[in-house]
This record gives sequence, structure tokens and C-alpha cells, in this order.
Amino acid sequence: MTDTAVEPATTEVEQWLSRFEEALAAGDSAAAAELFLDDSYWRDLVAFTWNFKTVEGPAGVKDMLDHALAHTRPRGWATIEPPATAEGVTEAWIAFETEIGRGAGHLRLKDGKAWTLLTTLDELKGHEQTTGPGRPMGAEHGANPERQTWLEQREREAKELGYETQPEVVIVGGGQGGIGLAARLRQLRVPTIVVERNERPGDSWRKRYKGLCLHDPVWYDHMPYIKFPENWPVFSPKDKIGDWLEMYTRVMELNYWSSTEAKSARYDEAAGEWVVVVEREGAEITLRPKQLVLATGMSGRPYTPEIPGQDVFKGEQHHSAQHPGADAYAGKTAVVIGSNNSSHDICAALWEAGADVTMVQRSSTHIVRSDSLMDVGLGALYSEEAVAAGVTTEKADTIFASLPYRIMHEFQIPLYNEMRERDADFYDRLEQAGFELDFGDDDSGLFMKYLRRGSGYYIDVGASDLVADGSIKLQRGIVERLTEHGVVMEDGTELPADLVVYATGYGPMNGWAAELISQDVADKVGKVWGLGSDTRKDPGPWEGEQRNMWKPTRQEALWFHGGNLHQSRYYSLYLALQLKARSEGIDTPVYGLQEVHHLS
Amino acid sequence: MTDTAVEPATTEVEQWLSRFEEALAAGDSAAAAELFLDDSYWRDLVAFTWNFKTVEGPAGVKDMLDHALAHTRPRGWATIEPPATAEGVTEAWIAFETEIGRGAGHLRLKDGKAWTLLTTLDELKGHEQTTGPGRPMGAEHGANPERQTWLEQREREAKELGYETQPEVVIVGGGQGGIGLAARLRQLRVPTIVVERNERPGDSWRKRYKGLCLHDPVWYDHMPYIKFPENWPVFSPKDKIGDWLEMYTRVMELNYWSSTEAKSARYDEAAGEWVVVVEREGAEITLRPKQLVLATGMSGRPYTPEIPGQDVFKGEQHHSAQHPGADAYAGKTAVVIGSNNSSHDICAALWEAGADVTMVQRSSTHIVRSDSLMDVGLGALYSEEAVAAGVTTEKADTIFASLPYRIMHEFQIPLYNEMRERDADFYDRLEQAGFELDFGDDDSGLFMKYLRRGSGYYIDVGASDLVADGSIKLQRGIVERLTEHGVVMEDGTELPADLVVYATGYGPMNGWAAELISQDVADKVGKVWGLGSDTRKDPGPWEGEQRNMWKPTRQEALWFHGGNLHQSRYYSLYLALQLKARSEGIDTPVYGLQEVHHLS
Repeated sequence: MTDTAVEPATTEVEQWLSRFEEALAAGDSAAAAELFLDDSYWRDLVAFTWNFKTVEGPAGVKDMLDHALAHTRPRGWATIEPPATAEGVTEAWIAFETEIGRGAGHLRLKDGKAWTLLTTLDELKGHEQTTGPGRPMGAEHGANPERQTWLEQREREAKELGYETQPEVVIVGGGQGGIGLAARLRQLRVPTIVVERNERPGDSWRKRYKGLCLHDPVWYDHMPYIKFPENWPVFSPKDKIGDWLEMYTRVMELNYWSSTEAKSARYDEAAGEWVVVVEREGAEITLRPKQLVLATGMSGRPYTPEIPGQDVFKGEQHHSAQHPGADAYAGKTAVVIGSNNSSHDICAALWEAGADVTMVQRSSTHIVRSDSLMDVGLGALYSEEAVAAGVTTEKADTIFASLPYRIMHEFQIPLYNEMRERDADFYDRLEQAGFELDFGDDDSGLFMKYLRRGSGYYIDVGASDLVADGSIKLQRGIVERLTEHGVVMEDGTELPADLVVYATGYGPMNGWAAELISQDVADKVGKVWGLGSDTRKDPGPWEGEQRNMWKPTRQEALWFHGGNLHQSRYYSLYLALQLKARSEGIDTPVYGLQEVHHLS
Repeated sequence: MTDTAVEPATTEVEQWLSRFEEALAAGDSAAAAELFLDDSYWRDLVAFTWNFKTVEGPAGVKDMLDHALAHTRPRGWATIEPPATAEGVTEAWIAFETEIGRGAGHLRLKDGKAWTLLTTLDELKGHEQTTGPGRPMGAEHGANPERQTWLEQREREAKELGYETQPEVVIVGGGQGGIGLAARLRQLRVPTIVVERNERPGDSWRKRYKGLCLHDPVWYDHMPYIKFPENWPVFSPKDKIGDWLEMYTRVMELNYWSSTEAKSARYDEAAGEWVVVVEREGAEITLRPKQLVLATGMSGRPYTPEIPGQDVFKGEQHHSAQHPGADAYAGKTAVVIGSNNSSHDICAALWEAGADVTMVQRSSTHIVRSDSLMDVGLGALYSEEAVAAGVTTEKADTIFASLPYRIMHEFQIPLYNEMRERDADFYDRLEQAGFELDFGDDDSGLFMKYLRRGSGYYIDVGASDLVADGSIKLQRGIVERLTEHGVVMEDGTELPADLVVYATGYGPMNGWAAELISQDVADKVGKVWGLGSDTRKDPGPWEGEQRNMWKPTRQEALWFHGGNLHQSRYYSLYLALQLKARSEGIDTPVYGLQEVHHLS
């Protein structure tokens, strides 16, 4: 980049920021809104809205600022590295502060006006994380007869929290989501207990089918604070990620209650706290946290369809979540119902073990080859090359977050068109084998499917070739019933089976709230996940952010946390700051609390 | 830094490198040597010498090149960032390659000639580490009926190595040194077993007195591959570092045999392998590695002086290494013999617990306040500020390594003079309390004492104030004998005692070889540690590198590894590459194998 290319961009951004700052300082929402294009998007994570919110166009900006400006008092807008212009869009990395915190963000200008703006609250003044310059000393210098060692303090905390003292936050679910959030909260000095049913951190991975590896690559998967080392595999085997989570929980000093089951929870409005009953080491314990986070996962509640004859079937049948791996099924005949990730992984492993396998495809599936997804879909942001080019995980996360959901599919469609072309032979072979393919309702591919519905795809690491060449048999259609020794399809086809695996996905996330709290609260909160894109399994109206995730819900003091490792890492910071602000009594006026349009 | 300041430095370095390359390519050692100042130092770690060696002046350079040039074939000398000149010295970061590997280094020019040159071998061609672009895939794509999962492979390796297959390397001692080296060897695919007496990795820290914290700060202490996270304490509490080492051992997939004792070892010359007998889980197992590394630590073998009356003393007596902490000694009278780090820590903890404590100072001690050491001694290389200024741990390590030991004290003396001035009141108060201070034989302070003799100092974190104000009583002189209830000094002073702690240090490191192998081998190897500076406890002649550490010894296939966390981290790479080269049958002609001048 030469000097002459940089300078106009710098000037353009500085002029915009200075006019923006002036309008905001004057409390002039209308003037600030005029700095945005008609088709523009301001995505705010907590800084202005105490919510995750994307407002659109000048009218959206003005409405949000009318609500937020007086108490937010944003100021000190500045660039943190030289802006650059490419193809008519000028990009800038920015910082600012508000009355209560410091923020950062990302700005794209077109023709001198804002096209996209991302603003995030990154820390609360006076409540900074205990990291970097704020890290603890460890050794307390000087002489102190009351001195307690680090170990004594840790042991005392572990003994007292939940018994003699109450946590501020209880997180139900100790997978990567709950663990990462608890680590964030610890650096913010928010007393937190993570409640997890399994014996050891990482067991939610260890207990899945033995061949499972992460489908996302290592650069996308880092936990907060401790990155995977440079010898970490690209696709982490499940037991290895399990070990990592276990060590992470230990060295991050989390209060992690394993072998503990959350039995019930109710919100005591009068006291402004939850009453959470858990069973730990055989004893019932009542916790009274101010905030309750459900981090039980998108893949937490297995959904098994009710099919006539399940009671007469004499073979083995289980949900994919309970599938132990293929080793025991050599020489057996297996039917796997479903055609997404788990089904493909399980079918391939069964075939490798020497079973006769049929996959039942009930509806079309989006397939993308892992290599292509890495190269075309993720490579620019999350790859060895991206890291070498200075795109750190933090930077990649911000770039990702800066793309408004409303137009994200427009960026995705060309990538998937490229993959379709690149892998045309592959897709032809699959279709010739009778496999029903899709690329999403609008051909926007995997990531949009994930954001909209969290299902409907397979990242191919080898099973598709087995489907294409008939090694894994394919049966399209709906299962009508089970018999003693097989599966009967609606068209009358009979499939003999020693084993039936239901790779049929998971129930709605607010089902967790129904189970733990009440159906009333689940209904009050409504559907969790999805953008309101009005595509299959993501009904409208448009919400513009993931429903109910990482942000306030219609149930006071109830939060949902989760998503893939990338989302858990990035959004846990903003959820942690929302929880911290409430624990410190900081005023948190929420703008645009979402409406409930769907119960599940 | 402006363009005009950079360019002459770049030209100077490029001209020097090009003349150097030309001379080396022509095999002209004399011409290459002429590019060095009369008082110059070329420190080579493995790249040219298959040794750790500092040669001095043109004659030293020529002699080394006469030996090494033909088989090393160095080439491709280049700078890896723009050089800079300050105070008449031009500094450059460089890279090069040799016949068998790739190297890096650091160059300082004065008046166009080399003043200091550091060259290091960083990787072997064709045997690169499995990191970054070489990391494993984790998931094996495609279909493979012989597929083994990561867990199955790990379990199989752990079951077979040492039983059905033999390791290339056995490391005796599983503290941070052995663990870090084993991690390096694993990335180089060298089958290795670490043998450790304790139950769990980290126990060598956990089992020490309960108030112990590292005296070196976090930025100095990182392990290879996984840095401490940004929330890690500046001075790591012993149990926390223990937990870190335990998780590190696990996630780095080391073959770590805990609760295992190395009973004996002998070198089978004919077979070219060691016969190492260990006891594991109650069974004797014979290992036959090609290489044996002793990583049992500088602080591994407690030294307790024999004092008349130890058999009649009715109180409790133990070495500082066995001291459990102060809790049990409230109201008791304690005598702690010695006045270095452990003694000060233990005396302060006993005083805090309410014991009556006397410290016996037998000889002068170097004291430096922790804050001053951090600010003045380490701050430029290892601190939050250094990291913020772009001095990564890797860069700091290289700068540190680039200073030749011969002149290192010249850089250290002014720092310690500054600390003496800064803390003049503090030192006055200590002397007025009768404490005998020193700053090393040549006033070069703590780090030189550490390199020369590994003892003789205390980094003050509070105990010195207790000595100065008499809270910890001070007794100078030599203990003559113990009685039933106390300690009698040579001058007749009697000190009553319920507890005597021997903070009397550790025996010579080659004592480990005597114990495990034979006195003959210990004598053949000679003294371990020290530079030959001809100062107290570091007798000459000048060796110029730490004796016998991380490099070939006079006993074939026997190596010593250890030092503080910084040294273990940095030098473990070069030891690992020496071991890897031997395991691959690469020719490793050693230049300047050290002479043995002292047996211990």
C-alpha cells in the first residue's frame, strides 16, 4: 500500500468520524442519521443498545439514537489503524468510548456515507478484566500474618461458593460455551458456578461417536484467552478437544460443578433472583443467583421422531447422540435415518467397520466439501495463510461480525457458486446416485443455513463418495413404521435392520427452559435461534440478529448462550459484559427488546 | 525511525553479509575471519559446531570455520527486518541456511566489522516440526476401513512405547525442563519417555513449601508452544504452575511415566544404546534408548551438611526441599541455616505464622528487590511493556542469547549499580541489621551469579524488611553443633530451636550421573553448570558456555537439560535438534567438545 492510496481514505474516514462525533455530541440524532446511506446497517453489540441490534437506514439509526444517545454519551471516535479503500468501499477500524465503557468497531463508507457500522462495548470503565497490565501479582510482597496462599484461596472459594456465599451467575451446561463464558466472567470478577451433568469437562465431546472430529478448522475454534497451540490439528478429534476443555477449566480456575444436575429453576421476582435446585454428589442444593444462563447447547436435546413399531423392533435403536461408534456393528445391517452431518459421519464409520448401511434421506441436504469450504469459504479469515497475513482471530471475528445479517447471503452466494463450479463433478455423481441436494433456499449455502436453522447440511470429509458409489445405500422418503426386523418406508420399500440410528437432530432450544423452568417461561421467551429470514425452518418476521442468543430475553435475568466455537468465543465477551453491568448496578436500558412471534 | 536513519544501517549490514557469504562460499575462513573485530564474539548454537560454542576474535572464528565450513555449507544470508544503528552499533536480525537446516541469528556491527554474531540452527530440512503449516489434519478425510481414531492411536502408543517398542530418548526428570524438552521432541517425531518419580506432573512444585511463588515474572517463564494466558499472575504460585505443567503434559500428548523411578543406567557401547532400568507401578522395566537426558534439575538433590549433634537434636530438622510450610510452627522457635532464596522465603513464612525465627548467615548474600529487578534488570526484554513494544518472548530470548557470556557482566554491572542507588536506604538498613551483602565478585549481580554458580542470592519480596527490623533474627557465622534443644555457633552463641531447617542448597548436578550411572561417568563428564569465570564457586579456566548443559558431553549419548524456565524453553529447541539429528543418522561433527577441569 502506497502513501497516495492511503491518504484519501484516511481523510474520508476522519471527516466522517468528526461529523459523526459532532452530531452525537450535540445530541442531534437526525444529523447523525444523515451520515448513513439509505441502505445502511448499524450493528450494535451492547455499546448503545444494551442489546444485540442491527438498525437499518437513517430512520433506524435515528430511532436508536433517540433512545440511546442521552445515556450513552459516545465520544472520542478515532481510527486505530490506517483506513483503506478498495472497489469504492473505504474500511476503517475504529475505537470510541461511552459514559460507562470503551468500545471498538468497524466502519465501511461508500460515497462518503456509512454503509455498515459495527459498534461493540469491549470493557466497562473501572471494571476492566484482570488481564495484561491488570493481571494479578500472584506473590503478595511484604509481610502479612493473615496471608493465604493461592491454593488456600482457591480451595476456600470452591468450598464456600454455592454454600456460604451465592454466585451472581449460574450457567447450566458446561460444554465449550458455558466454559468460555465462565472464563470471561472470572476475569470480570463475577462469581459464577457452571453446572454440568457429566463427570468431567469435555465429556459432552468424549461421549459422542468415536470417529467424530470438529468440522470447523482450528483457527475458527479458539477459546478465549488461551489459543490452541501451533501443533493443534486442523480438525480437532473429539477426545482431544475434550482434554483441552478439561485443562482449560482447571487452569482458568472455574467453579465447575461436574456430576451435577440442574433439577428446577424459578425466578423469584420479589427477591430479584433465581431459585435453582441442583443435585450434586447426591445432595440437593439450592442456589440463588441473580442471573441464569442456559448454555445447554443447540445439540443438547436429542429429537427422536415417534414412529409406529418402535416398540416391536427387536434390533438396537438409538439417537445419534447416543451412538457409541461403529465397532460393534461389523457384519450387521444398519439404517440411519437423516442425511445431515451426524448421519454421514455415522454411515461412513459403519461402512468402514464392515456393516451394511442404508441412509434414509427425508428431505434435501446441503453438501459442501471440507477442502472447498476451507479454501473458498473460510480461508480469507480463518486459516494458516490468514494468520500469516496478519488477520488474527480477533480481527477475523470483528470482520465477520461487521457484515450485517440482512445482506450476508449476498456475500455468501458467490462463494457457494464458486464451490459448485469447483466441485461440479462431485455434485453430479451425488445426484446420479439419487441424493437430493440443495444450497439453501436462496443458494447462500452452509453458513446461512447454520444461522437460520442450525441444520440441513453435511461438510463432506469422505462419506459423500461412499454415497455416490453406492457403498452407503441411499433410500429417499419417509419412514412409515418399524417392524421386528426392519424399517418400512411410505412407498412400501422394506429395509432390513439390526440397528436403527435416528440422526434426526435436536429439539428447540427453549425446550431447555420448559424443562428446567416452566412452559410459561419457554413461551414467554419464544423461539431461540434463527434470524427471521422467512426461509425453511426460519420463519419471519425479520429479526436481524439470532433470536434470544447472548442478549436480553423477555424473561428477566434469563439468557441463552451457545453456538459454535467461534460464536461462543466472540459473543461470550458481550454477554459477560451485560452480566457484569447488572451485577454492578449499572443502568442497562435495553433498546428494541425482541418480540416473540413463534413459540418454538 | 525515519527512512534516512534506516538506510545506512541496511547498506552496512547487506555489505557485510554479502562479503561474509562470499568468503564462506569460497571456503575462505581467513577472509571470513577478517570481517570480525579483534574483540569479537561468535556464539553458535548447533548450526556450525553441533555444540554450544562462543569463539573469540578472528583467530577463533578462523579455527571454527576451518573445522566446520566444508560440511556446514552456510548460505543465503539475509536480514529478516530492517537493521538499525544506535550509539555506533548496528543491529541486524538475520536468517541463513546450511546443508542440513535453516538457521537464524543476530548480528552487531561496529565500524563495519562484526562485534557479536549469534547463529542458531532452528530446523532440520525434511524434519520440520509438526506445527503451523505442518500441523496434523486431525480428521483423516476419505474412507478407510483401517482407520484408527486419535484416541485409539494415543492409547496404543502409550501402551506399546517402552514395552513393545523402544524410545529414542529417555528423559529422567519430569519437571518443567523435561516436560518442555519432551514437547519439542514430540513435534520432531522423536519417540520419548519422560521418567518422573512423583505422582503427577507439577508435583516437583506442589511439594515445596506452601508459600512459594516463582521469583521470575510470567513473561520470562513461558513454556514452548503454549504461552501463559494474559490473566496469568506475574509471579506464579507453585500450585498454579503445577496445574499448568500437568495440563501441558496432557495436551502436548507426552509419554510421561509418573510414579516411576530411574534405578540405574549404563551405556552399552557395542549396541550404541543405554540400558535404563526403571521401576514403574511396582515392576522393573528395562528401557533401551539411544540417548539419555538428565533433567533432574539444579535444585534436585538437596545438600544437607553433616553437623555434629544432628543425631541428638530432639526437635524437627529437615532440608528446605522437605519443608512443608510454616503452619505447624506457630509459637515454636526455628533456626534456618542459610541466607539465600529458600531461607528468606521460609523465615518470612515462619514469622508470619507466629514462630520465633533466626536466620543463620554463613557467608555474604546478594539481595535485590523484586520490583527493581523487574524494572531495571528485566523490563526491557520481559515485561508487559516489552510485549506491547513488540519484543515478543522469542525476540527477547534471541537478544538475551546474543550477548556473549565473556562480556555479559559489563552489561550487568551498570544495572546493578542503578539498583544499588535506587534502593540505597534498603541496603543501608540491611547492613545496619548486620546482614552481610555482596553483589557478586565483580558487582555484576544476580544473573551472573546464577549463570556462574546457581546460588548466592535472594530476590526480595518482603523478607528483607523483616530481617532489617529484627523480626527475623540474624545470626552470622558457622554452626558448630546441634544439642538436644538448639544450635551452637562456632563463637559459642547458643540458639534454642524446636525446628532446624537446612536451607543449604543442592549438590553438584553430575552427582545425578554418579547416582544413576556410575562415579566413572560422573567424573568423565566433570562439573556441570558454570562458565569458568574464575569467581567464587565457578572456577576457571574460561569455558564460555554453561558447562555440559544442553550440548554434547564427554560421555557419548548423555545430555544434561535444565535451568530456569527461560533457559529450559530456549535451549530445549537446540538440544531437541541435536537429538533429532542423531536419531536420523545425520552427521554431527562436534567442534570444541569441552575439556574436563573439575569433577564437581
